[in-house]
Amino acid sequence: MQDPLVDLGFAKVDTHRAHRTGDPEVVFAQGKAPAQTLSIMRTLQRAHPERAVLATRVDEATAALLKANLPDVVVDPLGRTAVVGPLPPPAGTVLVICAGTSDLPVAAEAATTARVYGAEAQTISDVGVAGIHRLLAVREQLQTADALVVVAGMEGALPSVVGGLTGVPVVAVPTSVGYGASFGGLAALLAMLNSCAPGVTVVNIDNGFGAAVHASRIARNARR
Amino acid sequence: MQDPLVDLGFAKVDTHRAHRTGDPEVVFAQGKAPAQTLSIMRTLQRAHPERAVLATRVDEATAALLKANLPDVVVDPLGRTAVVGPLPPPAGTVLVICAGTSDLPVAAEAATTARVYGAEAQTISDVGVAGIHRLLAVREQLQTADALVVVAGMEGALPSVVGGLTGVPVVAVPTSVGYGASFGGLAALLAMLNSCAPGVTVVNIDNGFGAAVHASRIARNARR
Amino acid sequence: MQDPLVDLGFAKVDTHRAHRTGDPEVVFAQGKAPAQTLSIMRTLQRAHPERAVLATRVDEATAALLKANLPDVVVDPLGRTAVVGPLPPPAGTVLVICAGTSDLPVAAEAATTARVYGAEAQTISDVGVAGIHRLLAVREQLQTADALVVVAGMEGALPSVVGGLTGVPVVAVPTSVGYGASFGGLAALLAMLNSCAPGVTVVNIDNGFGAAVHASRIARNARR
Amino acid sequence: MQDPLVDLGFAKVDTHRAHRTGDPEVVFAQGKAPAQTLSIMRTLQRAHPERAVLATRVDEATAALLKANLPDVVVDPLGRTAVVGPLPPPAGTVLVICAGTSDLPVAAEAATTARVYGAEAQTISDVGVAGIHRLLAVREQLQTADALVVVAGMEGALPSVVGGLTGVPVVAVPTSVGYGASFGGLAALLAMLNSCAPGVTVVNIDNGFGAAVHASRIARNARR
Amino acid sequence: MQDPLVDLGFAKVDTHRAHRTGDPEVVFAQGKAPAQTLSIMRTLQRAHPERAVLATRVDEATAALLKANLPDVVVDPLGRTAVVGPLPPPAGTVLVICAGTSDLPVAAEAATTARVYGAEAQTISDVGVAGIHRLLAVREQLQTADALVVVAGMEGALPSVVGGLTGVPVVAVPTSVGYGASFGGLAALLAMLNSCAPGVTVVNIDNGFGAAVHASRIARNARR
Amino acid sequence: MQDPLVDLGFAKVDTHRAHRTGDPEVVFAQGKAPAQTLSIMRTLQRAHPERAVLATRVDEATAALLKANLPDVVVDPLGRTAVVGPLPPPAGTVLVICAGTSDLPVAAEAATTARVYGAEAQTISDVGVAGIHRLLAVREQLQTADALVVVAGMEGALPSVVGGLTGVPVVAVPTSVGYGASFGGLAALLAMLNSCAPGVTVVNIDNGFGAAVHASRIARNARR
Amino acid sequence: MQDPLVDLGFAKVDTHRAHRTGDPEVVFAQGKAPAQTLSIMRTLQRAHPERAVLATRVDEATAALLKANLPDVVVDPLGRTAVVGPLPPPAGTVLVICAGTSDLPVAAEAATTARVYGAEAQTISDVGVAGIHRLLAVREQLQTADALVVVAGMEGALPSVVGGLTGVPVVAVPTSVGYGASFGGLAALLAMLNSCAPGVTVVNIDNGFGAAVHASRIARNARR
Amino acid sequence: MQDPLVDLGFAKVDTHRAHRTGDPEVVFAQGKAPAQTLSIMRTLQRAHPERAVLATRVDEATAALLKANLPDVVVDPLGRTAVVGPLPPPAGTVLVICAGTSDLPVAAEAATTARVYGAEAQTISDVGVAGIHRLLAVREQLQTADALVVVAGMEGALPSVVGGLTGVPVVAVPTSVGYGASFGGLAALLAMLNSCAPGVTVVNIDNGFGAAVHASRIARNARR
Repeated sequence: MQDPLVDLGFAKVDTHRAHRTGDPEVVFAQGKAPAQTLSIMRTLQRAHPERAVLATRVDEATAALLKANLPDVVVDPLGRTAVVGPLPPPAGTVLVICAGTSDLPVAAEAATTARVYGAEAQTISDVGVAGIHRLLAVREQLQTADALVVVAGMEGALPSVVGGLTGVPVVAVPTSVGYGASFGGLAALLAMLNSCAPGVTVVNIDNGFGAAVHASRIARNARR
Repeated sequence: MQDPLVDLGFAKVDTHRAHRTGDPEVVFAQGKAPAQTLSIMRTLQRAHPERAVLATRVDEATAALLKANLPDVVVDPLGRTAVVGPLPPPAGTVLVICAGTSDLPVAAEAATTARVYGAEAQTISDVGVAGIHRLLAVREQLQTADALVVVAGMEGALPSVVGGLTGVPVVAVPTSVGYGASFGGLAALLAMLNSCAPGVTVVNIDNGFGAAVHASRIARNARR
Repeated sequence: MQDPLVDLGFAKVDTHRAHRTGDPEVVFAQGKAPAQTLSIMRTLQRAHPERAVLATRVDEATAALLKANLPDVVVDPLGRTAVVGPLPPPAGTVLVICAGTSDLPVAAEAATTARVYGAEAQTISDVGVAGIHRLLAVREQLQTADALVVVAGMEGALPSVVGGLTGVPVVAVPTSVGYGASFGGLAALLAMLNSCAPGVTVVNIDNGFGAAVHASRIARNARR
Repeated sequence: MQDPLVDLGFAKVDTHRAHRTGDPEVVFAQGKAPAQTLSIMRTLQRAHPERAVLATRVDEATAALLKANLPDVVVDPLGRTAVVGPLPPPAGTVLVICAGTSDLPVAAEAATTARVYGAEAQTISDVGVAGIHRLLAVREQLQTADALVVVAGMEGALPSVVGGLTGVPVVAVPTSVGYGASFGGLAALLAMLNSCAPGVTVVNIDNGFGAAVHASRIARNARR
Repeated sequence: MQDPLVDLGFAKVDTHRAHRTGDPEVVFAQGKAPAQTLSIMRTLQRAHPERAVLATRVDEATAALLKANLPDVVVDPLGRTAVVGPLPPPAGTVLVICAGTSDLPVAAEAATTARVYGAEAQTISDVGVAGIHRLLAVREQLQTADALVVVAGMEGALPSVVGGLTGVPVVAVPTSVGYGASFGGLAALLAMLNSCAPGVTVVNIDNGFGAAVHASRIARNARR
Repeated sequence: MQDPLVDLGFAKVDTHRAHRTGDPEVVFAQGKAPAQTLSIMRTLQRAHPERAVLATRVDEATAALLKANLPDVVVDPLGRTAVVGPLPPPAGTVLVICAGTSDLPVAAEAATTARVYGAEAQTISDVGVAGIHRLLAVREQLQTADALVVVAGMEGALPSVVGGLTGVPVVAVPTSVGYGASFGGLAALLAMLNSCAPGVTVVNIDNGFGAAVHASRIARNARR
Repeated sequence: MQDPLVDLGFAKVDTHRAHRTGDPEVVFAQGKAPAQTLSIMRTLQRAHPERAVLATRVDEATAALLKANLPDVVVDPLGRTAVVGPLPPPAGTVLVICAGTSDLPVAAEAATTARVYGAEAQTISDVGVAGIHRLLAVREQLQTADALVVVAGMEGALPSVVGGLTGVPVVAVPTSVGYGASFGGLAALLAMLNSCAPGVTVVNIDNGFGAAVHASRIARNARR
Repeated sequence: MQDPLVDLGFAKVDTHRAHRTGDPEVVFAQGKAPAQTLSIMRTLQRAHPERAVLATRVDEATAALLKANLPDVVVDPLGRTAVVGPLPPPAGTVLVICAGTSDLPVAAEAATTARVYGAEAQTISDVGVAGIHRLLAVREQLQTADALVVVAGMEGALPSVVGGLTGVPVVAVPTSVGYGASFGGLAALLAMLNSCAPGVTVVNIDNGFGAAVHASRIARNARR
């Protein structure tokens, strides 16, 4: 049997992981040279032309190189993601919610990730806690989702309010949006960990990707 | 002219401060022996029988000693306050709001303080952000106050939601209610400092007294 | 229509929340007097005799009072929980995993909570990362669960290893087990937030309850 | 009735908020592209030509673009603010106090904000605690204000001294001025939260805007 | 020559250090059994009957044992110090200043230490920054000292104000007096390290002893 | 009498402070535009041509402007200081000690400051604790100083060793030299605050200026 | 083959680990009931009567129970250790060094652990950095050891000085000895992590056990 | 005898240290000008042409200058090291293990350092805890090393798993790889300090150099 590890010199790419776990292949592009990200994506795509390959934290230089070399890559400059290959058919719905314009990049990363991981993804923005009526207006929509990803910076209060409105599983994503005593997202992170709404779970600051992996697994399982 | 400082040995009591600032006399009883608190309250009361004297952070032993020795003292075991002397006529309204049972001691300290500082004080509890409908039910009442003191532990989100519902000045009080990553109230404190609702100001953890001093000054001035 | 809020003096108990959300009633007993916890549990049980009522963080004095006054209460001294009323029929499986003896109280709280919230709960202990063969021995069992609650103190590495073995949604619970630079569970909390296994979400330190609420919602939905 | 939300693609602008709350419209320009800030300001101005629109945290590029496109914009490069539209008639006085040259930008942001929110604003600088005589020289002026905004970096002691000189409500603003163990303003923030002068409230580091919103609401209410 | 180290089993006591450095012998009693402190003090006193021996952090049990066994010991329960043997003739003056009643124990430790280290020590209390007139009233006295030890908890602002009033060397001592965001004296410590008054130096929280050692060396040298 | 405050627009310069305190005039250039620093230095020099004026934290652009406009300015690029006007006659000796090459800028700032404040300053470098023999080789020199400024980054151990070798007053300066868990100098700062050598006092991270102000006052007084 | 796991109800004891790794069996008694520690030690001793079993963090109640039930247990109340069974023949030397009386419990835990893990252990105390001559007096002895365990609280400087005197591998143990800004040993921990002496490695605060495990493995290997 | 210190103006180079300790000469290039690093390396090489001289933290500019001026320098751009002179004959084996591509620079620094310090060095990468089978595949190789250097960022779990697989001494190196709540490597550092695998010791964040110095001393001694 052929060795599933392809050695690119700077990384050994496991081209069989997708087969083993059913998950897509993912490249965390931050800290990698654009050419490295391109090389890994191409290797994975060739090994699995029938599946999507996702790159996250794609900066402008990497995006340009990918677009020049991977004909059908889809780059989202807002969420800093790049995807090649066909998306899986969606099963279950992940609803991504955020408060303000500044949280949109993390929300976009989450939405794309959810789609690559096999869920349908929808996004609602501009529903911050200081304007509670906007959030209440979408209350029905919250109930129809299989999993919620709630993105918020500053005081990070949105997951608590959302968690009090619905019994749908909530994953909270603190963002680094803020200044001064937000300490790079620490304030929002601590707030979410102390949420008075039971059942809210939390991921790392700005980690829209991780929240969406968790949420899309929930959504897929709920619609088996 | 008589010296306004009365030397009790362990403290020099300034019996003229009330005259100079119009504020009541206050004793921070925490860290003081019960007999010391009694002695200071008695000295201040004798110097100003026409005004209220407030003691905060009164523990059980101190409360018992005060009740045994100051005939007309009013002790609130919930808010751990003791008051002797007549309250000033109220001017303006301070509304104290809190989320849960555990925040009630800080809310009670704030309400008593506001009354001693010359404002009318009302309290609304059980209006946490995870049950937003209870808070919306009292929205009208928020608008009628001259100043709001909003008390919350855990994720400290209540001031942001309240601040988004009204233009009344809001003072937020983080409490040490919580565990683990609440770090003794730090999570709530940081959340309140990062509130997305403009105009929310913050005091120290569990400092219902300080919030009420600020709020009652606002209320008094608004009703001159 | 009858008012769903029963005012006990120290708390307003919302006896209709179960009806609205489908979740059980829960009392966080920490910081409450034993008589208060008893009073709230009794009120909720009378309003909903057909449903379970759960109390968490039940200390010895409270446990004794509950057992003396609620004939069919089930107290778990390890997990510090008390339950009255019939459990719902289980739907889906939550598997609770922990490393060592010291983490068992948090794991037990999680298991009981999952059952009260309508899932089947199983527990595996003694599978720490420093003895990786024990964990690998239960690998098949991990795959059969609908959601995993992974409890760990000290360096908090277990969720990363578990998350790498399976695609089942993982909720990680850091515990305050440790000393020195564990800083009351902060080390484990940070480790879990930085897990290299995608899709791991995290709750507050020692919050077995919250993790199980999230996990049991996943499990129930997966087996609709 | 016409929809009050104008969708600009990157943001939904609520053109009726001013009508509902009586507050001006504000744009937090930090993190926004210059063209976005311009677009939002223009939209708001068109909807409310009779009211002021304020932008804060305006960098040089944004300031240049605003000046080139909004004929009557008033840009303050020190406080990094931009204002279009007529100021409201002032009611009540907000006095902004700071210690040194380095705190002037935050003080200027506060003064402009207070004016846009309907108060008269005055500024006193160069009154640090290490030169206490300068502060005592303006003691009378402190008493005449309706609210005080006290801005300080480094050890953040000024609000305590000011709070001891007057019963006027004090809002303290810590600044990020300092180095080393100031930890980006944390030292000043903690000092202000622990002020021994009762009634001092605090906002986020460098948040002159928030302090002035609170203070101008106090001032307006005091002069109804 | 006789070995200067006397081995007590639990400690090796260097009975010649006083000879080498000119400083007195000191025992840090915290964490030592009362009998250990007694044994060390007695050994040192026998080796140097002509010099003072100082014990700091003496709790009640240790104080009682020392008084029962060392006939001429002088115990100060406020500052928790014990001294046996004659004090050196004072050279130069250390002035210890503190704000409130709660800081008195640390101030007392500093004063006793200064005397044992060979300086004259005076204490001024009740001169907090929120009542700046009391401090200004003693301004002349500040100028006559050779070194100042300024003790303050909470916001720790006193050293900055004192340092602005005089060119006498100032040593600041943060105390753990406070609650909430004082974080056990951290707020005062950071404030003092960031003092805008040049030349203020700082010691550990509650370290009245260390501040007085530094200050008395200054005072002695200034009066050689 | 003529007003001692000269208003430069961006700052009010107190040209009489030198007269009142006997200290030199100092400009903290960090955060100031080069032209501002030049303007303040020139104003102070004209008011006091017979005294030195010191600027600290002088960057390259400011240094160039000062050299082009102040004929007799002395700029030290290592310590980032600039001095105009005659130094006072030295009284007493400040000895500045540091461990390595990286700490030299802070040591140089301290040495220049000490000279401007009226003390003689000497510097010893390359005496780190990991090569204790170099430090012991200069032990005699330590004893002859009137005050010691000990500069160290990384683990900040040097002041403890120096403080154990001599009874001369020691001021410790932590530097931001290090990486990782030095947290910008926090490790060295904490180490120095916890020094087991009694009498060591500490200033802010990288604050060679403040340490030298304190030390030169000690040295001057010791040689009156 | 017999199952090596003995299930005690509260723990599954792996009686074959010693066979697999060559290390002794260890019980971390902190947080365990005395009867649990006794039960585990007895089970392990019966499985391996020819090897030592070590318990650490043994409190007084546990020590009493062990002594009453395990005839040949050796309890060290200083280091809070208990050992049953024969020690292995020593191979190589671990030298444990500490500064003061307060660090002795951690040093004793390290020495006992080293012996149980198969090394010879020696201890040197009273060699703090503030009295450097005592340390230099034992310099020769440092060179003869195969591994050094250096224990220090407060500023944690001792490992740096020791590491500069010798090329023997050094393991540093920070202790929680100190107060105020030692933050429970954090100051010493950070200092040791930033040691300027290359090759110093660090373990958790008060973890004499872990340091000795590492050091005794080094010593054993060096004397194969 | 000739003075072993060569004074380069900016540094005094001790050309005899190698002779005294048997260790190579090392230059920490970070924070030094390229010409300074070149000058020190050249001085050391001339003094000891028979030994290796190592420079760490060599940036691109320094690398270029070294290559242009030192004919036989070996620069590793990945590990940012430069070596001149012959390596010592290897004694004992240091195995460096890391999880991912991002940790490779620190691993490379460690490997080069180990070789310069006299050990044989091997590296295994791509063995993260989320893919435990890759690590288990090299389990035999772990056992053959004399010391292990385990490099990991993010949650820092690898040393615990490795430490559970082998009794070989483990030195853990946390890296700054991660984002958000990794806080620059703090999360990994804390995790490693709290490792449940006994005998794991830790060095500063990104300090591959220090870990390798410790490990190579172990390896050399084990193969004497």
